[in-house]
Amino acid sequence: MQPNGLITLTTDFGQVDAYVAVLKGVILTTNPAAQILDYAHEIEAQKVNQAAYLLHTGYRYFPNGTVHLVVVDPGVGSDRKAIALRSPQWAFVAPDNGVLTYVWQELLAEHGRAALELVELTESRWWLPQISTTFHGRDIFAPVAARIASGVPLNEFGPPLENPVLLPLPAPTQRLDGSWEGRIIHVDHFGNCITNFTRSFLDAHQADGTPVIAILDQKIERIERTYGDSEWGTVMALIGSNERLELAVRNGNAARMLGVGVGDSLRIIFK
Amino acid sequence: MQPNGLITLTTDFGQVDAYVAVLKGVILTTNPAAQILDYAHEIEAQKVNQAAYLLHTGYRYFPNGTVHLVVVDPGVGSDRKAIALRSPQWAFVAPDNGVLTYVWQELLAEHGRAALELVELTESRWWLPQISTTFHGRDIFAPVAARIASGVPLNEFGPPLENPVLLPLPAPTQRLDGSWEGRIIHVDHFGNCITNFTRSFLDAHQADGTPVIAILDQKIERIERTYGDSEWGTVMALIGSNERLELAVRNGNAARMLGVGVGDSLRIIFK
Amino acid sequence: MQPNGLITLTTDFGQVDAYVAVLKGVILTTNPAAQILDYAHEIEAQKVNQAAYLLHTGYRYFPNGTVHLVVVDPGVGSDRKAIALRSPQWAFVAPDNGVLTYVWQELLAEHGRAALELVELTESRWWLPQISTTFHGRDIFAPVAARIASGVPLNEFGPPLENPVLLPLPAPTQRLDGSWEGRIIHVDHFGNCITNFTRSFLDAHQADGTPVIAILDQKIERIERTYGDSEWGTVMALIGSNERLELAVRNGNAARMLGVGVGDSLRIIFK
Repeated sequence: MQPNGLITLTTDFGQVDAYVAVLKGVILTTNPAAQILDYAHEIEAQKVNQAAYLLHTGYRYFPNGTVHLVVVDPGVGSDRKAIALRSPQWAFVAPDNGVLTYVWQELLAEHGRAALELVELTESRWWLPQISTTFHGRDIFAPVAARIASGVPLNEFGPPLENPVLLPLPAPTQRLDGSWEGRIIHVDHFGNCITNFTRSFLDAHQADGTPVIAILDQKIERIERTYGDSEWGTVMALIGSNERLELAVRNGNAARMLGVGVGDSLRIIFK
Repeated sequence: MQPNGLITLTTDFGQVDAYVAVLKGVILTTNPAAQILDYAHEIEAQKVNQAAYLLHTGYRYFPNGTVHLVVVDPGVGSDRKAIALRSPQWAFVAPDNGVLTYVWQELLAEHGRAALELVELTESRWWLPQISTTFHGRDIFAPVAARIASGVPLNEFGPPLENPVLLPLPAPTQRLDGSWEGRIIHVDHFGNCITNFTRSFLDAHQADGTPVIAILDQKIERIERTYGDSEWGTVMALIGSNERLELAVRNGNAARMLGVGVGDSLRIIFK
Repeated sequence: MQPNGLITLTTDFGQVDAYVAVLKGVILTTNPAAQILDYAHEIEAQKVNQAAYLLHTGYRYFPNGTVHLVVVDPGVGSDRKAIALRSPQWAFVAPDNGVLTYVWQELLAEHGRAALELVELTESRWWLPQISTTFHGRDIFAPVAARIASGVPLNEFGPPLENPVLLPLPAPTQRLDGSWEGRIIHVDHFGNCITNFTRSFLDAHQADGTPVIAILDQKIERIERTYGDSEWGTVMALIGSNERLELAVRNGNAARMLGVGVGDSLRIIFK
């Protein structure tokens, strides 16, 4: 990966504090040529799995050479590691708490382990002079991301690491009655409930019959093409822009209407 | 219009998802020299009229050559068109759902129809290779905006269109008793209620007497100069920074105090 | 200070309006080479003290030559002054309402008065042609910040001013029983309650004994090193990333759990 100077910021910092600003300041002080882009800052506080999902749904759209900096770090100051990952196209800097799970698995499947470089950030000469116990985003992650974006090779930041910490990603499981149980893995700003049923899962089960989706006492008999294809006020299913089955309500909020959220289960019965 | 490389983003995507990030990534992948500016992302989900108003109150302040990209798109995947508009100073890329209403009317009045170029986006060679049914912001609007910002002429993107879809903009109407009925068209972050009574409306009616504003059971007898001119805790009227009559409460929230919102009516009686 | 072209934006404008966008547009129209960074926009409406605190916790992390523009301006249109401040490293443009209090005191202690340049913004030739009574951010502050960032010397904007308006900053006070009373001065996005007890205060009182923190009916007997050092669900104390004593709850929200907010008091008893 040849860096292009772009650095994206994904945090759970919100916009009521100076924490995001401080990251920007440290990056630009370290690397005045960096170009900073806000990726998302309203991730729910300390929800590593939400950040992992969001990073995964967007990182590929950035140009080759972009550095993705992720600071969702409930374990700051503990013995969790700090890491950097380089693939042929992008680099990532993050706490080693599972926030790179989806990205790692996808890049691993695509390029193989040998094409990925993973290091633990241990070389303190690249950090701010004083390291706090509560804000490694400022003291460690931001200056390292800034240096990667300016071309410092990954092995300068610390020793290689075999694997990052990975979150257990729930896969659909088959029940005794033949139906498949899945979960909501993200609720977006519009209340759309995105599930762990992928388009490829549905494609692979095409021979099993027509899928009927069951959640709470609702049965959804059809998979629509787009939001406008359903009647107002009814819960619909479709394949969303991330190639996953999602539940939605036309001009409404499916999560609120159903009263469900991340982690809640739904089923697919093929008929 | 000679593009200057600037692209502003107006969406209803919020900041809890990767949707805004994906727009940024697609733009920079398409046009690495683009400079992206967040315009507003917390527009209420799918409120086309709110987006139309907000775009209108800010687009003129940007330098000549700026491209304004608007993705508030409840009809995504339906047969609503996708459009681009070029005026002598700015360009706009948006779904054809009325979100350019104010802008169109203002530019039309200023320059005449011949000076405006409006096209339907049909030429898929400028889009992402795969077009989803749920996220045209990513697949169509962002790559087109990026190309306009890099100098591709509008007629490359599709055939000319005579008119965009326009929202019905409520104008003040006179009642039998001689008073004028208007509406709140926007409630801002501070709770100020912005109305469809413009400064020019008030100027044109100066000969009719002193305006008294009536809303619910409140009568406001004076139009103040600025927020600080009223007593604490009382609802006041003034001409706001967009040259429209607005209701405000000094160091308070007028919409919450009155219990009113967009679409609610108020009256002006000239005495 | 040699400007570097960077301008940060700190406002209470939120993201549901075009106000932030308008500042960006005016800056780039005035100075097309400016690079704009969002600092924070979700400051509570008109909370000058919150903005003062946030600016203070981040401004130092930006490169030398950065201009910090602050528009939290409840007194817009009144006779409050508009000011610009230049230190050897940074410049600031703001209403003269105390929003620079922490910054001023810190820079004064560090450099002395002679190294600081403070002017009142009176030279209207640098402003937009039309000055509203309700949005000086657009009409005065943004164009002036853009010009400072392009190298116009401060004395061009107006006459020198001896001192800015300063907020009374509450310092810990000793009570008759020997304990110290302090206050919560900021509640961050995570619910952490940041107080006016600094690390230097605690260091200076080391000889007085072990500090015990008392708030409401809670007593906190230890100052932890980092968030993860406490048990789940209990209120803890630590020195946060801004070198101030803060109250926190591991993976929780201390302000909500305690039911406290900015201005509430706490005590330290040295035992």
